[in-house]
Amino acid sequence: MDYEAYFAEQLRSLKDRGDYRIFAELERRAGHFPSARCHDDAGIEDITVWCSNDYLGMGQHPEVIDAMVEAIRTHGAGAGGTRNISGTNRLHVLLERELASLHGKDAALIFTSGYVANMTVLSTLAKRIPGCIVYSDAKNHNSMIEGIRHSGAQKRIFKHNDPADLERLILEDDPAAPKLVAFESVYSMDGDIAPLDEILSVCERYNALSFLDEVHAVGMYGDHGAGVAERDGVMHRVDVMQGTLGKAFGVIGGYIAASHNLVDFVRSFGNGFIFTTAMPPGVAAAARKSIQIVRNAPDMRERHQERAAALKASLSAAGLPVMPSVTHIVPVLVGDPVACRRASDLLLDRHKIYVQPINYPTVDRGTERLRLTPTPYHSDEDIAYLTQALVDIWSVLELKRAA
Amino acid sequence: MDYEAYFAEQLRSLKDRGDYRIFAELERRAGHFPSARCHDDAGIEDITVWCSNDYLGMGQHPEVIDAMVEAIRTHGAGAGGTRNISGTNRLHVLLERELASLHGKDAALIFTSGYVANMTVLSTLAKRIPGCIVYSDAKNHNSMIEGIRHSGAQKRIFKHNDPADLERLILEDDPAAPKLVAFESVYSMDGDIAPLDEILSVCERYNALSFLDEVHAVGMYGDHGAGVAERDGVMHRVDVMQGTLGKAFGVIGGYIAASHNLVDFVRSFGNGFIFTTAMPPGVAAAARKSIQIVRNAPDMRERHQERAAALKASLSAAGLPVMPSVTHIVPVLVGDPVACRRASDLLLDRHKIYVQPINYPTVDRGTERLRLTPTPYHSDEDIAYLTQALVDIWSVLELKRAA
Ligand SMILES: Cc1ncc(COP(=O)(O)O)c(C=O)c1O
Ligand SMILES: Cc1ncc(COP(=O)(O)O)c(C=O)c1O
Repeated sequence: MDYEAYFAEQLRSLKDRGDYRIFAELERRAGHFPSARCHDDAGIEDITVWCSNDYLGMGQHPEVIDAMVEAIRTHGAGAGGTRNISGTNRLHVLLERELASLHGKDAALIFTSGYVANMTVLSTLAKRIPGCIVYSDAKNHNSMIEGIRHSGAQKRIFKHNDPADLERLILEDDPAAPKLVAFESVYSMDGDIAPLDEILSVCERYNALSFLDEVHAVGMYGDHGAGVAERDGVMHRVDVMQGTLGKAFGVIGGYIAASHNLVDFVRSFGNGFIFTTAMPPGVAAAARKSIQIVRNAPDMRERHQERAAALKASLSAAGLPVMPSVTHIVPVLVGDPVACRRASDLLLDRHKIYVQPINYPTVDRGTERLRLTPTPYHSDEDIAYLTQALVDIWSVLELKRAA
Repeated sequence: MDYEAYFAEQLRSLKDRGDYRIFAELERRAGHFPSARCHDDAGIEDITVWCSNDYLGMGQHPEVIDAMVEAIRTHGAGAGGTRNISGTNRLHVLLERELASLHGKDAALIFTSGYVANMTVLSTLAKRIPGCIVYSDAKNHNSMIEGIRHSGAQKRIFKHNDPADLERLILEDDPAAPKLVAFESVYSMDGDIAPLDEILSVCERYNALSFLDEVHAVGMYGDHGAGVAERDGVMHRVDVMQGTLGKAFGVIGGYIAASHNLVDFVRSFGNGFIFTTAMPPGVAAAARKSIQIVRNAPDMRERHQERAAALKASLSAAGLPVMPSVTHIVPVLVGDPVACRRASDLLLDRHKIYVQPINYPTVDRGTERLRLTPTPYHSDEDIAYLTQALVDIWSVLELKRAA
């Protein structure tokens, strides 16, 4: 076995398929979002970012930055240990209280990321509840898939956003078997939303625990930004609310909010929670401040939705193939990995606009796309300029327009 | 199935066994390490921390804090996306270069934690190298165990720090099968060190990839703090060096350093790397500064070792059962989970000293211990005071003394 040759060959075949990823090297500039600097072989240039998941620009909010800086100056750069071994800071506890309150639950638990939250919580519940069967939406995020797979539990995949298919699968299983249903509210690559009420009704009918990933919804939906479950008035019916502190809240980290016993169970048995250095106090302080601001900023959510609507309208009017989306996520179909990367490169070279190509495995082959994420900080001029730039690229590359 | 009742019952049985964990709620104070504030029902009090993994106190180093603050003020609180989707900041790239250079490798890759690094890299390599067999040291950390398990690859466990047993197991397998040997340098609960040269010789003899976790060694061993592999002059023989930014470097995050192709392979196929928000730029800046300082501070490493030796000598002289350790980690045997927690509680109540009990599953049952981690900031008085306090607790609880 020649390991080096094997790695090289696998990388070559990625390149041949057009799926090899090159990371744009950015310098985000607090106070100037969505503008950033981009470093490449040609040097450094100013660009406009149109694909950030800092959906509300909270990562540059002056109060968030001040909270982070103050905590670092007071408590230092890191937590100094795992949560159990000297790493629990008072700021972690306060953040967990804020999250529990946001979601109307007894308790919350923070993780180093939303990825680790999904992986740890799903694997711990599905593994430790004897005989548990997991029902997973066909479009669930990789972190949920890996968590379920890691549990070793039996798994059924229901059709995307299809409560009837979920019910059909549940009816094939032992009514007495413990069940866990894992799904998302906003699906981040298509921008569609799950029928929460109907899925939760199925869960309740068959005594299944519900696990809802609101990673792309927290901060942005509901009167207080608690997510689509809040908007739809079903928050109290969700057993495990999962979210991230790294997207609309603008920092990093993940969490769940749930009953006191469920949270304590994961706290006590979740390996991905136990055996790792705790979140830095500065991160906890910044995330808490961000949540406090966003909870009380319905105007920010309105502006965000208005910007998304304006962008969709502008692109559609220009004949660009905007994919159907009922959220702030605005995907534009390219349908080929090489063309998708080319489109991204040309946007940057010709128009100083940065939109990462979204290729396999993030989306299915043949559905490669540019995924635009308008924020409250993108102006009318930004939208008009982006639309013109995309029209230009679409004609240079002879890409397919809207039907 | 009554899920709530099930969780409650599992928690109760943890409590009955003495394994239920209660997190001390601290406020570390930059500039006053190892002193901290502790919050509990009785209020807030000043204590001395004797179990931090911020081994060198770098989490409070003024230059590290300044670097973090400056990056946050310049670039914001978070990265704003995954590495691929707008989340790569120039500071990530610079940190990866620093790490590659520290370990004398082509390239490095950063992760949100050392846990995620182990989990992702081991599962990706073992799963994607067809027919790979993994050989894992019996005392490997949970993050390595989970990563190997997640790969689904065949796994053999060799006796702790025993190259002959590793060789014996390898000889039972197909010589042509790809092989991966995963082990640590410093084992964090016992403070012993692996025979790197001999284990690496076995790897080389049978063409196995070597994966070395130096989480509890980086920053602290070797002329430039690159770990035990540097100290032993074998760094160039290790295929994958893995480390953390959250212990001796005092911040948070994990990494590997390896050949260009191996790093690019994990970058391209490692799900736990791809599908998660990138490290905040402030964390990357702080970690890089910390590494730069530690690389050039052999005096800090000498003082650290000297403090550990002084502590061991003091405890031994007082007849306390210090477990054998050749490193900065100083475990004192209690041997019972309830007594271990009691000892920890009494240390805090009577002496304002905080040392977390280390119980199952972190260590084997019957080997419950207090694990002390002296830092360059613990004074002679701190050591004398701790020794007296432990002697007091040992007699109050009638714990076993050294033979
Ligand atoms: C649906 C979903 N869940 C979880 C995650 C992981 O969250 P985090 O970025 O905080 O690790 C992501 C994306 O990163 C996601 O899209
Ligand atoms: C040996 C070992 N590897 C990996 C880790 C995980 O590193 P991190 O704390 O950065 O997640 C730890 C402890 O936390 C450890 O002890």
